[in-house]
Amino acid sequence: MAANDSLLKLDGANCFEDRIGQEHGLRPEDLDKLQQRIASCHAELESRRGGDVGFMELPYDEELAARIVEKAGELRGWCHNFVVLGIGGSALGAIALHTALNHSFHNLLPAGHPGRKGAPRLFVMDNVDPALLSHFFDVIEDELPETAFNVITKSGSTAETMSQFLHVRELLRRRGADPARQIIATTDADPEKSILRRIAQREGFCTLPIPQNVGGRFSVLSAVGLLSAAVGGIDVRRLLAGAAAMDARCRSGDPRRNPAALYAALLYLFYGRGKPITVLMPYCHALRRLGDWYVQLWAESLGKRDGLETTDIFNGPTPVASVGVTDQHSTMQLYQDGRFDKVITLVEVQRVLPEGENLPIARGDCEDELSYLAGRGFEELFQAELSATRRALTDKSRPNLTLRIPEVSPWTLGEMFMFFEYAVAYSGSLYGVNTFDQPGVELGKQYTYGLMGREGYSAPAQP
Amino acid sequence: MAANDSLLKLDGANCFEDRIGQEHGLRPEDLDKLQQRIASCHAELESRRGGDVGFMELPYDEELAARIVEKAGELRGWCHNFVVLGIGGSALGAIALHTALNHSFHNLLPAGHPGRKGAPRLFVMDNVDPALLSHFFDVIEDELPETAFNVITKSGSTAETMSQFLHVRELLRRRGADPARQIIATTDADPEKSILRRIAQREGFCTLPIPQNVGGRFSVLSAVGLLSAAVGGIDVRRLLAGAAAMDARCRSGDPRRNPAALYAALLYLFYGRGKPITVLMPYCHALRRLGDWYVQLWAESLGKRDGLETTDIFNGPTPVASVGVTDQHSTMQLYQDGRFDKVITLVEVQRVLPEGENLPIARGDCEDELSYLAGRGFEELFQAELSATRRALTDKSRPNLTLRIPEVSPWTLGEMFMFFEYAVAYSGSLYGVNTFDQPGVELGKQYTYGLMGREGYSAPAQP
Repeated sequence: MAANDSLLKLDGANCFEDRIGQEHGLRPEDLDKLQQRIASCHAELESRRGGDVGFMELPYDEELAARIVEKAGELRGWCHNFVVLGIGGSALGAIALHTALNHSFHNLLPAGHPGRKGAPRLFVMDNVDPALLSHFFDVIEDELPETAFNVITKSGSTAETMSQFLHVRELLRRRGADPARQIIATTDADPEKSILRRIAQREGFCTLPIPQNVGGRFSVLSAVGLLSAAVGGIDVRRLLAGAAAMDARCRSGDPRRNPAALYAALLYLFYGRGKPITVLMPYCHALRRLGDWYVQLWAESLGKRDGLETTDIFNGPTPVASVGVTDQHSTMQLYQDGRFDKVITLVEVQRVLPEGENLPIARGDCEDELSYLAGRGFEELFQAELSATRRALTDKSRPNLTLRIPEVSPWTLGEMFMFFEYAVAYSGSLYGVNTFDQPGVELGKQYTYGLMGREGYSAPAQP
Repeated sequence: MAANDSLLKLDGANCFEDRIGQEHGLRPEDLDKLQQRIASCHAELESRRGGDVGFMELPYDEELAARIVEKAGELRGWCHNFVVLGIGGSALGAIALHTALNHSFHNLLPAGHPGRKGAPRLFVMDNVDPALLSHFFDVIEDELPETAFNVITKSGSTAETMSQFLHVRELLRRRGADPARQIIATTDADPEKSILRRIAQREGFCTLPIPQNVGGRFSVLSAVGLLSAAVGGIDVRRLLAGAAAMDARCRSGDPRRNPAALYAALLYLFYGRGKPITVLMPYCHALRRLGDWYVQLWAESLGKRDGLETTDIFNGPTPVASVGVTDQHSTMQLYQDGRFDKVITLVEVQRVLPEGENLPIARGDCEDELSYLAGRGFEELFQAELSATRRALTDKSRPNLTLRIPEVSPWTLGEMFMFFEYAVAYSGSLYGVNTFDQPGVELGKQYTYGLMGREGYSAPAQP
C-alpha cells in the first residue's frame, strides 16, 4: 500500500437540508461561503508545520520508531506488567490504542495465549485515587521485579504523575530493586524544562523525548503513545504510516479533498446554528475509549475564555463520548427526541470481526418470535443497528456524519488520530482561539499547590 | 443505624449569586417561587407510589432480598464466572455496583485473594459487537461448565440480549451441558408479556421477576441489579437499607428537607437559564461508572419530543459523565473557560480509602521542586484537588453542587440510586414530560427488524 492510500471516508450527506430538512440542515452554499476561510486556516496551520506546531511531523520520525521498537522488544523480554503513569494527554492515547487494537480481555488471558501477542499485562494509571492505586499495588505486588513503569509527563512537574513516580521509586528502593532498570521517563527533551528529565539523567533512567512543539493531547504518535503500543504488540510503523496517509490528504486546503477540513467546517457551521454538542459514537466496542481521547482533544483545544483577537468569548463545543449499539439503550432517546443541540459523528467499521470470521447468533431453530435471528450473525445484527440508527436520526432531522473505515487496524487508527488532530486545529482557527494552550486549569493547580502547602502558593479561603 | 439515618448531604451553596455572581447565580427567591410546583410534583409522584410507579417500593421487598441472597450463595458455591447478558437498564446498575464496591481489579485477582471476597469473576456483556463477544468466549472457553449466565430483559424481546441468549443456549447444548443449570432469566413476571419467561418456564430455568411498574433504568434495586451484586459479595440488604433511608427523606415535598427535590429544582432553574448540560463528576475512581448509570437515567427520562400537555417540545438536558481528578486534565479546561451552559455535580467521598488505611506519596526526601509532596498521602492530594477544583469553578462563576458521602459503601450507593431516581422523577414533572417511557427509540428498532428481515417490518429505503 502506498503511503497516500488513505482508507478513511467521511460522509457528511446527512448534514444537509435535502436529507434532514431546512430547519436543521445546511445548504451547500453555507459550506461554499466558508471555503475561503478554511483555506486560510489551512495555510496558517501549514505555515507553522514543524515550527511551533509539531503533530503533523510525528509520522516521519523513523529514528524514534526504531528506538521504540527496540526498547519495546527488550521490555517484552523481561516484564510481566507494563504500567503507564500519566494523566490526560499522557494516558488517553495509550488507552485508546490498547483498547482498540489489543484483545478485549488482554490482561485476563494467560501469558502464552495467542491473543496476548506475547505482551505483558498493560495498565494505565491515570488517576491518583488512593483506593485505585492501593488496589493496583495489590495486583502487581508479587511481580514487582517484573514490572516496568513508564512515567509520562511533558512538563515533568504534573503533581499526579510525579506523586506516582515518587511512590514507585521509593517502593522499588525499599525492595532493594534498581529504579533505573524499571523506570522509563518520557518527558520534555530539555532538562531546563523538566525536573523529571534532570532526575532521570542523574539516576540513569532510560528516557524518551516529547518534542517541544507537541502538546500532551497531540502526542499519541510520539513516544508518549508509541512505547506502550509497541510493548503491547501493535505495529507502530503501520500506525505511523496510516497517520502519514491522512497527513498527505490534509495538505490540501479544499474541504472537498481534505476530510479534516470538511469535518471542522461542518461542525463549526452547526455550532453557529445552536448545536454546540458534538457526540462521537463509534459502532465498535474497541473504539469506545477513542471517544475519551477525542473528548480531551476537543474540550481542551476549543474550550477557551479568550479568543486570539477578543477577550471573554467563552467559546467551545461540548464533546461527548458514546458507543453503539450500547447507547441506543441509554442516550439515543435524548439524541433523537431531545433538543436540537447536537451533531452526531458515527464511526462505521465495515467489518468488525477479522476477515473470514463469523459469530453466529443461532445456527439451529428458535422460538417463533425470535426466528428472525436464527441463521444470522452478530456482525449482521450490529451493522443493521448502525444503519437503522443512522436512518432514524436522519428521519428525525438530526445532523449526523459517518466516518467510515474498513476495519480497526494500526493503519486506520493512525488515520483517525491525524484526522481529528487536523480537524481540531482547523476548528480552533475558525473559532479564533489558540488551539494549543490550556490556561483555564492554572487556577485549580495553584489552589492545589496552596492546599498541599507548596511554598509560594496559598490555599483558597473557602474551598 | 436506624433506617432513617441518611448519610448523603447535598450542598447547593455554589449555585447562588452570593457565590457565583448575579449573571449566572440563582437568587434564593427563584427557589422559593418554585416551591409550590415542587410540592405538587412530589404529591403527584407520591400518589403513584406502588401503583404505576414502583421504584420507591423496591427497598422493602424482603422476600426478594432473601431469595437473592440464597441464590447468590448457591452460585458462589460452584461458578467461576458470573455473566450478565443485558443492555441499558439491565446492565448499567450492575456495572455501577460492581465498579463501586468490588476490588478495582476484581477479575485479575486470584480466586483465593481476600479482595475477591470469595466471588467468581464478573462480566457484564452490554454490547453485541461481534469482536467483543468473540473475545469474551475466548476468556470463558475453558470454564464454560463453571459459568452462570444471567439473562436480563424486562420485555423478554430485546434483540441484543435475546441474541446473546440464543447463542449461549446453543453453545451449552452443543457442549452437552444443561442450559437450565447455568441460565438465570430475569424478566417481566407476566409470561404473556415476556417470551423469555415462557421459554424459561418451558425449559426449567431459574427465573427472577422485574415488577411491572419498574422500568429498566429504575431497576437497579430489583433483581436486575441485586443478583450480580450479591454474587459479587455486596451486602444487598445494606444497599436496600441505604435506599430506604433516602426514601424516608424523600417523603417530604419541601426541598429544604428533601435533597432530591432540591437537586431537581436547581437543575431545572439552570436549564431555564441556558444551562442544559449537566455533568456528574465523582471524585472517586470507583464511582466513574455510576456516571454511566446516571447518564441513561437522565437522558432517557427527560429527553422527550412530546410533553404531557404539548407536543413537539423537544426537551431534555444532556447528562455527561466525568471523573476526578482525571478529567481535570481533559474536560476541566472547557468546564471552567467555555460556554456557560453547564452545571457540575461533584461527588465528594470524604474518605476514599478505608478507615485506618493510608497510602503515602513518599516517606523519604525528594527533590526540591517536589518537596511539597514529601510526607504527604494520596488521599490528601486527591481531596485537595477536589477542593481546589470546586473553588476554581466557583471563582469562575460556574454553578456547582456537591453531593457529599462519608465513604463508598452499599449503604451510600443505595442512597445515591434512590436520590437520583427521585430527582429525575421530580424533574420529569417539572418539565412536564413522561419520565417513565422511551418512545423515541422505537423507530430505530423497527428499522433494525426490517433490516434483519423480521416479518411485518420493512427496511429503510436508504440506510
